[in-house]
Amino acid sequence: MSEPPYKHEARSGCALANGLEILGDRWTILLIRDLMFTNKEEFGHFMQSGEGISTNILTDRLNRLQQYKLVNKLAHPSHGKKYIYELTERGQALAPLLIELALWAHHHVTDTLIPDKLYQMMINDKAGLYERVRNKEPIVIIDLKK
Amino acid sequence: MSEPPYKHEARSGCALANGLEILGDRWTILLIRDLMFTNKEEFGHFMQSGEGISTNILTDRLNRLQQYKLVNKLAHPSHGKKYIYELTERGQALAPLLIELALWAHHHVTDTLIPDKLYQMMINDKAGLYERVRNKEPIVIIDLKK
Repeated sequence: MSEPPYKHEARSGCALANGLEILGDRWTILLIRDLMFTNKEEFGHFMQSGEGISTNILTDRLNRLQQYKLVNKLAHPSHGKKYIYELTERGQALAPLLIELALWAHHHVTDTLIPDKLYQMMINDKAGLYERVRNKEPIVIIDLKK
Repeated sequence: MSEPPYKHEARSGCALANGLEILGDRWTILLIRDLMFTNKEEFGHFMQSGEGISTNILTDRLNRLQQYKLVNKLAHPSHGKKYIYELTERGQALAPLLIELALWAHHHVTDTLIPDKLYQMMINDKAGLYERVRNKEPIVIIDLKK
């Protein structure tokens, strides 16, 4: 069952302008990347990403993502004080966008990395990759500090 | 003939993070939109877009786009004091990204618009759309104030 589209005050009716308004800045997309392709799901996990997001920005962007209904915040199954975050159907639907952005950068910017298994799926098995995203099966398993 | 990939100081090796660093903010992508799909090619044309970009930001973003080799600045064929801007091959290669972003927003945000001819090509004829972008044939013709 698909959610109703998100409504907001827009500068123009252009689909691209509106999409960008919601996705906002790079931090939002990097969080979606972590949620979409890796086993990260807790606040502390996102803090461990290589780009060095600050606590303030992470809190703000997770709130925005919930407000825009791209992410759900759920009680942690085993830690009473913690939460886990997962993409909604609308958030999962960003997979083609993230894939095209990653492939563009991989071809046009030096020294960029896409983990090999993920890259192979992006090139050879997009349908399988979307299926994994829908089923919340991470493709890249990161050894997370607890 | 493809240009060598762009090299820059990066926060992480991740392809997505690097792509976002270069694409920067929403204004950059809205300029690429105008160059890719419409007949806009002069500084004054970009000022006429519905989102109301300021002169300062437009100047800065056009400079960035040249620095990153996404856009070429050329002498205007008929106005000695003017320039025209066009996408490089690397800039044109962003077409799949822009299409996926527009389609996502069109489905998931209310009141968004993709001009009908462009939408039809996005859905039914992506190959033809890429061809038009490569050949610099605008799909959306805007009545521009001179």
